[in-house]
Amino acid sequence: MPEHRIRYAPLRDKITSAAEAASHIKDGTSLFISGFTAGYPKLIPAELVKRAEAGEKMKINIYAGASTGDAVDGVLARAGLVKWRRPYMSDRGMRAAINREEILFKDDHLSSLSAAVRAGEWGPVDVAVVEVAAVTEKGQLIPTLSVGNTPSYVKMAEKVILEVAAADPPELEGIHDIYIPEDPPWRMPIPIYRAGDRVGKPFIEIDPDKVVAVVYSQEPDASAYFSDPDEVSLLIAEQLLDFVQHETKKGRLPEGLPWQSGVGDVANAVLAGFQEDHFFQDLSIYSEVLQDTVLDLIDMDKVRAASGSALTLSLHARERFFKELERYKDKIVLRPVEISNSPEVIARLGVLAVNTALEIDIYGQVNSTHVMGSQLMNGIGGSGDFERNGSISFMVTPSIAKGGAISCIVPMVSHVDHSEHSVGVIITEQGLVDTRSLTPRQVAEALINKCAHPIYRDQLMDYYQRAVREVGGHEPHLLGEAFSFHQRFMQTGDMRVGGGGE
Amino acid sequence: MPEHRIRYAPLRDKITSAAEAASHIKDGTSLFISGFTAGYPKLIPAELVKRAEAGEKMKINIYAGASTGDAVDGVLARAGLVKWRRPYMSDRGMRAAINREEILFKDDHLSSLSAAVRAGEWGPVDVAVVEVAAVTEKGQLIPTLSVGNTPSYVKMAEKVILEVAAADPPELEGIHDIYIPEDPPWRMPIPIYRAGDRVGKPFIEIDPDKVVAVVYSQEPDASAYFSDPDEVSLLIAEQLLDFVQHETKKGRLPEGLPWQSGVGDVANAVLAGFQEDHFFQDLSIYSEVLQDTVLDLIDMDKVRAASGSALTLSLHARERFFKELERYKDKIVLRPVEISNSPEVIARLGVLAVNTALEIDIYGQVNSTHVMGSQLMNGIGGSGDFERNGSISFMVTPSIAKGGAISCIVPMVSHVDHSEHSVGVIITEQGLVDTRSLTPRQVAEALINKCAHPIYRDQLMDYYQRAVREVGGHEPHLLGEAFSFHQRFMQTGDMRVGGGGE
Repeated sequence: MPEHRIRYAPLRDKITSAAEAASHIKDGTSLFISGFTAGYPKLIPAELVKRAEAGEKMKINIYAGASTGDAVDGVLARAGLVKWRRPYMSDRGMRAAINREEILFKDDHLSSLSAAVRAGEWGPVDVAVVEVAAVTEKGQLIPTLSVGNTPSYVKMAEKVILEVAAADPPELEGIHDIYIPEDPPWRMPIPIYRAGDRVGKPFIEIDPDKVVAVVYSQEPDASAYFSDPDEVSLLIAEQLLDFVQHETKKGRLPEGLPWQSGVGDVANAVLAGFQEDHFFQDLSIYSEVLQDTVLDLIDMDKVRAASGSALTLSLHARERFFKELERYKDKIVLRPVEISNSPEVIARLGVLAVNTALEIDIYGQVNSTHVMGSQLMNGIGGSGDFERNGSISFMVTPSIAKGGAISCIVPMVSHVDHSEHSVGVIITEQGLVDTRSLTPRQVAEALINKCAHPIYRDQLMDYYQRAVREVGGHEPHLLGEAFSFHQRFMQTGDMRVGGGGE
Repeated sequence: MPEHRIRYAPLRDKITSAAEAASHIKDGTSLFISGFTAGYPKLIPAELVKRAEAGEKMKINIYAGASTGDAVDGVLARAGLVKWRRPYMSDRGMRAAINREEILFKDDHLSSLSAAVRAGEWGPVDVAVVEVAAVTEKGQLIPTLSVGNTPSYVKMAEKVILEVAAADPPELEGIHDIYIPEDPPWRMPIPIYRAGDRVGKPFIEIDPDKVVAVVYSQEPDASAYFSDPDEVSLLIAEQLLDFVQHETKKGRLPEGLPWQSGVGDVANAVLAGFQEDHFFQDLSIYSEVLQDTVLDLIDMDKVRAASGSALTLSLHARERFFKELERYKDKIVLRPVEISNSPEVIARLGVLAVNTALEIDIYGQVNSTHVMGSQLMNGIGGSGDFERNGSISFMVTPSIAKGGAISCIVPMVSHVDHSEHSVGVIITEQGLVDTRSLTPRQVAEALINKCAHPIYRDQLMDYYQRAVREVGGHEPHLLGEAFSFHQRFMQTGDMRVGGGGE
């Protein structure tokens, strides 16, 4: 196995135990790891936890591509090992620690991180830990199912530790397109003109002398689990696809624009909608995370190209993917996240961006990150990259949550991640509003009447009409009541006046 | 004069009176005009007002590059002629009408408008009215002191009316760089690699048959008035320039990044600061509106290139500029606003962006547009284009306004235009906070202690500490009190507890 996986002989001499490899990580180390929903190291974090359990006092900084799995964020957070964590994460325990400020977290647009690290803004890159499927004859790295920020982390790292993943076949070689853009002021354009363009190399370049340890890992990524889209998601997806068809037929939207779709139920429902609709053929996907449905669409020969920074697959889909890897590799490109999420490329391609909100207010401001204004959920991820730069920016949400106790359309969002200036079309299962040529007051009336759930329409309209009457202005707000929905929920468990008990 | 100004003979046959020209504009016409602080038409709006005063019932839609002068926005708003106005405007009377929803207004990122018009999102372009300095032998248009959205407006217009401006010399020819980017999905990169690159033509292309009327105008643009920077602006500028020097010397910021600077006192103070500081030489400016100080810097031989979409000059500076036009033309490029504000180009060049906030909250969210959350000021303009894409995004504001009755650092901003994810360094005359590697709680503590005015620090710290204690979370907020500063101001005229009377 070593010869096959590690084709550069000198690195075979560095094969060692996870404990030995992890000894390069000490209290205060800044650890920059591979991983973007998939492709994160598993053994080194486990070793660190062992040392913590044995009594070693240690705090490290963890920088990844985006979220990882329990094997990183979960175990390290539970062991109290993390001082700083950036960027996006989705682990429940880590989230709780971040909200207690026990773990320091700064939310970032995913597209901007690699450049910040190269500029030295995040401090020295002490150790990079990278999961790889293989090492080439010249010592270059073949990543596994994500690219994330790994190329820049490796470039800047003082020391590099490799986890060679038995679960990922070395035949992944060729699926990645590794391109590190130049940095200002002498930066040239990113030469991507079509979603599937390959502009880089199929491996991560590295000075092999920086590799201090190589370990073998039998641990696969945690599998994603996707449920069938529910009725709400299907209703949202249906309206979205109808809207795009309508705009295309009207000549306001050219054919052939690539799609971005965030993670989650609605995203999957949109992609599932493509399967059933004859209008959508020859699709391009320029997204961040690719999921099971992309394989389905490839199988139906509906996809010209699918580009992302990571492949997050269910157990079943992963087996299928590895079995017919050569066929899927023709269609799929995995890129650094600064390329998959590049504002420049997203704008150039005219990506149709679809992202999910936590809550949206009557004027179209969007909260993607903070529950009740204070509690971080996961982070902004790439939603700002895509919403701000897509040719049409769709923001979707169910109209209600928690069985109606929460309205996802509120008078004023309790935190703003995406301003009205960057959000185009808002969709709930109730209806769709194209805000792009409406005044804020027109947006409010349309959102309340079309997108809000009927059980909240009167309450919202009452707020809006009193704000118009009592305060006026371009975006009338009653500042004393702007968060009355949220306050009522925090006090009674229900945003409805009277608690919805009637 | 006609032969010199209108070198394409067939257009000389279309010279007519302003009244005759304006007859192409009727009730319901969508009028797309040149103008971006400068370079707006003056005669046609005056004719429309005459007709309104004579009793004609008429409402038109006015789309410009950005703000114009009293000769457009002022007179048309006072005459009640405007149904829709987009984008950014700064006229007092028009603002009041927008806030009463008597004029419909939708706030847009300036970079995104031309493409939306080309896509048909704004509906048909009935009539374009363009101020020109000259018409070439082939009928192409030489704009005056702004480009704005004019090239796309002309391209899409059914009819075009030209106002030939006697006040602007035809020798302006050559200062403009007109490049209309392609639209998705087959869009190529915008080939600008340095602030001063010229990538287009020195004129606006047009089918001359679309020109229905040509009128001669003796009306100059209203002159800008710039006061000397006050102490607060100078203190902000000084910290900003020190910070950039420091980061450059530390190696975290490369030399040679171009500057963007919004309009206003601080922007001028920053540019004035360049004059006195030996560190700053060979400057590039990649901005939206260029003002008097740019001429001063050119005179000092400190500027390699200055790029913008408009030149807004005081009376004195305009005289000086026209007198030595050939010398200034070497250094200055005027572009369409979709190019001057292009996210792609701003990011590529690594622009240092400096914009002014109305208010900033303790977690670094920024309000640029809405006073007390409801009343529109001017619009977001290009601030979102630059803040989101610059290599460092500076957001500046005095710490207080109205003699201390308003704190510009508040618990929560009453409207969000720029989220914490897109704002880097915050500066008031009190101090500077680099938020890029701080958690929101660390940002709050730093902003309160360093940037807030001392008369508000206790009030802000009290809010913050109680929010941490009572609510917690990643960005602790007391939703019931988040706007207590604003509410107190609206009730008592002062944000200070006790009204500041002590």
